[in-house]
Amino acid sequence: MMINNILKKKIKFASIIKFLKLNIKIKKNFLVKNFSSLKEAKKGDLTFFSNHKYINDLKKTEASACVISVKYKNFLPNSCFPIISEEAFSDFIKIINFFYNEFNIDKISQNLSKKHIKKKYKNISFGENFICEKFVKLGKNIKIGNNVIIKNNSIIHDNVNIGSNVLIANSIVEKNVNICDGSIIGKKGFGFKFINGKLLRIPHLGKVIIKSNAEIGSNCNIDRGSITDTVIGEYTFIDNQVQIAHNVKIGNYCMIAAQVGISGSTIIGNHVLIGGQAGISGHLKIGNNVKIGGKSGVIKNIDDNQFVMGYPAISLRDFVKKNKK
Amino acid sequence: MMINNILKKKIKFASIIKFLKLNIKIKKNFLVKNFSSLKEAKKGDLTFFSNHKYINDLKKTEASACVISVKYKNFLPNSCFPIISEEAFSDFIKIINFFYNEFNIDKISQNLSKKHIKKKYKNISFGENFICEKFVKLGKNIKIGNNVIIKNNSIIHDNVNIGSNVLIANSIVEKNVNICDGSIIGKKGFGFKFINGKLLRIPHLGKVIIKSNAEIGSNCNIDRGSITDTVIGEYTFIDNQVQIAHNVKIGNYCMIAAQVGISGSTIIGNHVLIGGQAGISGHLKIGNNVKIGGKSGVIKNIDDNQFVMGYPAISLRDFVKKNKK
Amino acid sequence: MMINNILKKKIKFASIIKFLKLNIKIKKNFLVKNFSSLKEAKKGDLTFFSNHKYINDLKKTEASACVISVKYKNFLPNSCFPIISEEAFSDFIKIINFFYNEFNIDKISQNLSKKHIKKKYKNISFGENFICEKFVKLGKNIKIGNNVIIKNNSIIHDNVNIGSNVLIANSIVEKNVNICDGSIIGKKGFGFKFINGKLLRIPHLGKVIIKSNAEIGSNCNIDRGSITDTVIGEYTFIDNQVQIAHNVKIGNYCMIAAQVGISGSTIIGNHVLIGGQAGISGHLKIGNNVKIGGKSGVIKNIDDNQFVMGYPAISLRDFVKKNKK
Repeated sequence: MMINNILKKKIKFASIIKFLKLNIKIKKNFLVKNFSSLKEAKKGDLTFFSNHKYINDLKKTEASACVISVKYKNFLPNSCFPIISEEAFSDFIKIINFFYNEFNIDKISQNLSKKHIKKKYKNISFGENFICEKFVKLGKNIKIGNNVIIKNNSIIHDNVNIGSNVLIANSIVEKNVNICDGSIIGKKGFGFKFINGKLLRIPHLGKVIIKSNAEIGSNCNIDRGSITDTVIGEYTFIDNQVQIAHNVKIGNYCMIAAQVGISGSTIIGNHVLIGGQAGISGHLKIGNNVKIGGKSGVIKNIDDNQFVMGYPAISLRDFVKKNKK
Repeated sequence: MMINNILKKKIKFASIIKFLKLNIKIKKNFLVKNFSSLKEAKKGDLTFFSNHKYINDLKKTEASACVISVKYKNFLPNSCFPIISEEAFSDFIKIINFFYNEFNIDKISQNLSKKHIKKKYKNISFGENFICEKFVKLGKNIKIGNNVIIKNNSIIHDNVNIGSNVLIANSIVEKNVNICDGSIIGKKGFGFKFINGKLLRIPHLGKVIIKSNAEIGSNCNIDRGSITDTVIGEYTFIDNQVQIAHNVKIGNYCMIAAQVGISGSTIIGNHVLIGGQAGISGHLKIGNNVKIGGKSGVIKNIDDNQFVMGYPAISLRDFVKKNKK
Repeated sequence: MMINNILKKKIKFASIIKFLKLNIKIKKNFLVKNFSSLKEAKKGDLTFFSNHKYINDLKKTEASACVISVKYKNFLPNSCFPIISEEAFSDFIKIINFFYNEFNIDKISQNLSKKHIKKKYKNISFGENFICEKFVKLGKNIKIGNNVIIKNNSIIHDNVNIGSNVLIANSIVEKNVNICDGSIIGKKGFGFKFINGKLLRIPHLGKVIIKSNAEIGSNCNIDRGSITDTVIGEYTFIDNQVQIAHNVKIGNYCMIAAQVGISGSTIIGNHVLIGGQAGISGHLKIGNNVKIGGKSGVIKNIDDNQFVMGYPAISLRDFVKKNKK
């Protein structure tokens, strides 16, 4: 979804086959549009399958090609060309690292001078030591505190409020968003695999998207996605010292209290309330209108409208019963 | 307690009645001195009642007027005029937002130049990129690291040590206090209410008061109070990555280990020890000489001299017994 | 181990005896090489014994002298001279504070100008507002973001990557290490004792050593050691908002997820995996190849190859059984 937004790099499918040294014939040498997750992939995209949890997404993917183990090959729709690999994830990473590595690197960017910023943006106010990279885009009526850094092609829309000591990279911040002091938005996520004893870093090409009217507290971390984006929904409020890992997607009108941690690739619905210090494991799906008590540890999916608490988190009723004994 | 310290704005009681469009007659059109909590209010102050937990404070309040539901009206002392509202909290917020909104906004302030600071303060040492707002007051023998920001009328007393990358706003820091690198003191708290589907932001007019000889670790957050102050007591030591929410009051000689979180309006006694990663819910009262084990989740009041542990926190004896099974 | 690396201060053993006002005769007035822990001490070093957990280290210490209670005196090897004190820890601290206090204070250092840095280091790139203390040593091919502070004689080896808003003090960072945005490395640890009602600050003279190819996430804290070093092993990866207290030693090839907290003096083996928000008490020993589930609270030593979970952490098997009921 996001790579070509940034890149518009033209890669032929045949060159990927060649890079993997595969001896297969392809019918049509299409132009690879994007590297995407199974669910987000569109026609022209390349995807991969390596986690059984996503088997339903596999069956419905719209991708044009998929790096996949031979034993799952038959789950693919006809429209998707299988690239057989018994190390699908590793090979997918290698492809990205080969063709897109430049997007994975946090370059020191060329910054605009104070004078230049003032000339380019007449409707924003900013404090001391504002470091604004050349290719950043800023809207109107933006307030920026002291020691703020905005970089890596980030886009900040109208009426956004940014505190002091904030770093924003690889991000789209929609209108009316508040980001409080000391938060770091859009650095690469924590992704490593040891494959055959060798360290493989998972590339991070995704963005952070903070939708309109959201609020991010102080000293928070929201990491950029790997091959999808990290998303914070509209009117979602996040308190201080919250950690949002790569690929997490949070819905609208959520309230997330201080020191919560949400692990990679978890998807959270709308109107979800999460109490302070709660933690949610990776690759989970939390429904709409869910309430998660403070300090809970959520380790499995939660359906809509549930109220859970405890570690591991169980229904509030069971939690109260268990602790009455 | 704090508003007039900052403000000295003169508001007649009648103008509040008028703003609420209430058709009531008042005997005496007094000058509203402050907007306060039930407990802290003095003669001349306006307060509100919306949480049953504070019923004892209601009976003893010294406030001159109180926004209150009709069914609690008779608990008020005779000296306190009831302003009847079935949305007492919401109406109280609306009053503050109308009359005091300017104190709720984090303005970009006019800063002193390095030259000016050196001229004004001969007895302080400070590092690079010190951003000091014009109306800040600094005492003697203060040491300030690099990239420090002090703003919004904060007062720093003698012999205070401030690390690097620290932001202090809306705060009074008493003598001999240490504040370590990366901490953010005095930003507004996390306060939102959805009332009838509309988002209401709770105003934050309170200060942070850090009493003498206290120490604040690194990358901590201490939010300013809403209509009361957030207070850290004398000789209280706080480790790294601790989150102290709005209105929290911590006594003297407490030790708070790393990654602890204390939710809004909780009051903690003297000589309290809190282990790492413990969490305390909001609006609780923790007695003197209490010990809270690491990683505990405290969800109810704790009497003096107790040692609690677990989630939910129970007495140490019960915790050990429970985990022997 | 570390003091003379920094100091090369010459202290005669007799002057320590004199400072403590002890009326004992010493055979040989040797030059004290270092102040060390029992385990790390070498010939010529002074150490202390105050925690029964370290009784095995006591029996094998190579130190030349040890501050120790009379009742443990006989556990000392013959090569080690006992300095009898019923307040061994307190007296050891007093000695350090008297002879070495200057290393305990975070001085505002003299910084190099941008021009000077560029002249001195031709092979590094750095962003805006780089604050580099005069006695820092930088290797080749180092990338440094914006608003970075490096101070107190820190040494940064080749190919290190440092994000923005990072503070490094009292540290040795080996080659190929990544340190992400907002992390604070090498500030003094959280160490206080109330002895006879008087506050005693534990001195911090140790360093942080981050070994080659390690990675530190964003908004992390790694505190310097008190009389030993805090160590992060090779190829150890640490996620965001992790707190590592003073004297902690982490082995090689560990993975530590976000918001983990490790208390003071705990030693962790190689190839250890620690899930998000887990906490580990102080003075523990965690073996090699240990897995600690997310949000676990570890309060006792763990042998090699164990998988633990829960609070208090128990074997995974017991945890699953317990939560099935």
